[in-house]
Amino acid sequence: MGESTLFGVKYPIIQAGMAGGATSPQLVATVCNFGGLGTIGGGYMSPNDLRTAIQEVKKLTDQPFAVNLFIPEQSFTAEEIAIHSKRGMELTQTFRDRLGLATKTVEKVQESFEQQFQVVLDEKVPVFSFTFGIPSGDQIAALKAAGIVTCGTATTVEEAKQIEQVGIDTVVAQGSEAGGHRGSFIQSEHLPLIGTMALVPQIVDHVRIPVIAAGGIMDERGVAAAFALGASGAQVGTAFLTTTESGAHSLHKEQLLQNNEANTEVTYAFSGKAARGIRNAFIEAHSSTRLEEIPPYPIQNAVTQDLRKASSVEGDWNMMSLWAGQGIRLAEQLSAEQLMQKLTKAIPRL
Amino acid sequence: MGESTLFGVKYPIIQAGMAGGATSPQLVATVCNFGGLGTIGGGYMSPNDLRTAIQEVKKLTDQPFAVNLFIPEQSFTAEEIAIHSKRGMELTQTFRDRLGLATKTVEKVQESFEQQFQVVLDEKVPVFSFTFGIPSGDQIAALKAAGIVTCGTATTVEEAKQIEQVGIDTVVAQGSEAGGHRGSFIQSEHLPLIGTMALVPQIVDHVRIPVIAAGGIMDERGVAAAFALGASGAQVGTAFLTTTESGAHSLHKEQLLQNNEANTEVTYAFSGKAARGIRNAFIEAHSSTRLEEIPPYPIQNAVTQDLRKASSVEGDWNMMSLWAGQGIRLAEQLSAEQLMQKLTKAIPRL
Repeated sequence: MGESTLFGVKYPIIQAGMAGGATSPQLVATVCNFGGLGTIGGGYMSPNDLRTAIQEVKKLTDQPFAVNLFIPEQSFTAEEIAIHSKRGMELTQTFRDRLGLATKTVEKVQESFEQQFQVVLDEKVPVFSFTFGIPSGDQIAALKAAGIVTCGTATTVEEAKQIEQVGIDTVVAQGSEAGGHRGSFIQSEHLPLIGTMALVPQIVDHVRIPVIAAGGIMDERGVAAAFALGASGAQVGTAFLTTTESGAHSLHKEQLLQNNEANTEVTYAFSGKAARGIRNAFIEAHSSTRLEEIPPYPIQNAVTQDLRKASSVEGDWNMMSLWAGQGIRLAEQLSAEQLMQKLTKAIPRL
Repeated sequence: MGESTLFGVKYPIIQAGMAGGATSPQLVATVCNFGGLGTIGGGYMSPNDLRTAIQEVKKLTDQPFAVNLFIPEQSFTAEEIAIHSKRGMELTQTFRDRLGLATKTVEKVQESFEQQFQVVLDEKVPVFSFTFGIPSGDQIAALKAAGIVTCGTATTVEEAKQIEQVGIDTVVAQGSEAGGHRGSFIQSEHLPLIGTMALVPQIVDHVRIPVIAAGGIMDERGVAAAFALGASGAQVGTAFLTTTESGAHSLHKEQLLQNNEANTEVTYAFSGKAARGIRNAFIEAHSSTRLEEIPPYPIQNAVTQDLRKASSVEGDWNMMSLWAGQGIRLAEQLSAEQLMQKLTKAIPRL
């Protein structure tokens, strides 16, 4: 572990691009100024908000940073959206009633990836990372033409190989410990949930591009283990959620600081896509629901949006999506700089 | 990572005590003679067979070795066994028909732990490791009086703390990547499946006894990562199954060598207790069966015994319990000595 050349940063530590507001420009820039790679979690941002966030980060740092976006999978017709979201409303009725929310009609289910992507190109973002799939050939060509370094997300060896094959520069190996959404994109009857310890060396053996370990990495021990496994970098999510600069909701921070490794679960309940979060009433209520009954992503995400919001306003964490990884006991109240100091402790100083 | 004092062996590498015939005296002794800790997987052995295995190992090595046993949990009346096993027979009828097996009556569901345990004491086994629970206070006292070093199995921080509290000397932190049965013993609605990367440092922070990392460790990279996470040793199971000395069935070895990280699954189908194995027809057939419908361990284990056996005799791997961890792509055809060389590559030679 010497000086990193990965992404042109001093320390090969990536602050994960968690969508939903946690990755404030202050958090991203602090990580970058320390010598790591901060990431704007742009998945749910409107193109305008994304542009604003990028420009704010640029004001706060002259170092490389990343933007992470969600690659769209299926698209749905207005009729399909109507049918699925009606079912989603029925399925979540008890919770809507509890919060006094009227049944709503869902129309727009997600931001336009094409428009978000155009912002990334326009702003010549140094690093573009993505999850849930692979950009199109044209998009990859446009990124290369703009000199943007790329980073995909894989949860199996096969996904990592596909990412390498289309010319992506680096790949995150997302172990099952990771909080938030699973990046799995090869359709399978069985969701791959492969632990970081097993996943990283197997991916390292099958691709030539640098592999970044993710999942369960919370401190310098996890970082050192990632390198021991053959990774060229370590991506950290959950540990950044409880930093001062994190934009995560205070209830989310509170629950992260008082829960333990046995209290997280992979659920489809909040978005229709598998994601790891702290177990609460909403997750428990869906634990015996068959997967086919939950509207697909991103429709269920749109269905539960006002519910999650209202729950947080009420100060009730039971209907909030409290994404968290399995390293949760190691979460601490630190400044982002203190966390970076901790994470880089095992990396020789220059 | 210097010379190990753990268990009095040269290298803190433990060959896992896999029950079911894989841990031949030759395998155990080769590991011990190399300087690691070999383990006899005695869980399913009759007291006599266990004694024979121990005596054979003693003939082949003068180094410390371990015996691993299953701590009994529930006991069942003859009537309960009859009711549960009848249901188990019905549930597996299709597979029994396929193999031409008549419905049988299950009487004895497991070996007597007390008798197995007495053999461990009588033979003054150097190390006693266990899973599925914690021995009684009297049993622990007897082990201490006999100068036997003890090692428990934990899948959560809480389990590790309980193991430490009763005076056990060391604890294995079994990550979700691990093959075979889960060692979880604190009853919970949710089976803990915490990845090794997240589990090890959290357990290390909460106990003072040495922690041994297990789950996904297949080569020197995994061993180095285990130490980086704060472990004092690394336990390896799956990688030993494909060694020359392993007593695993040839079909099991074959499937281990040609499967990948996405093809294992935690199932209750074979034994009534959660265990990770290679997905096959028998596992798939039970994937939508509600857990309550499967007879509890060890009754289901007794129910499927002849079925698993007949399947292996037929050369059909679809009804065999092919236990495997998620590091499966790294399994190789090696001698146990070659594997020990690989595993200890990152540990400084003396």
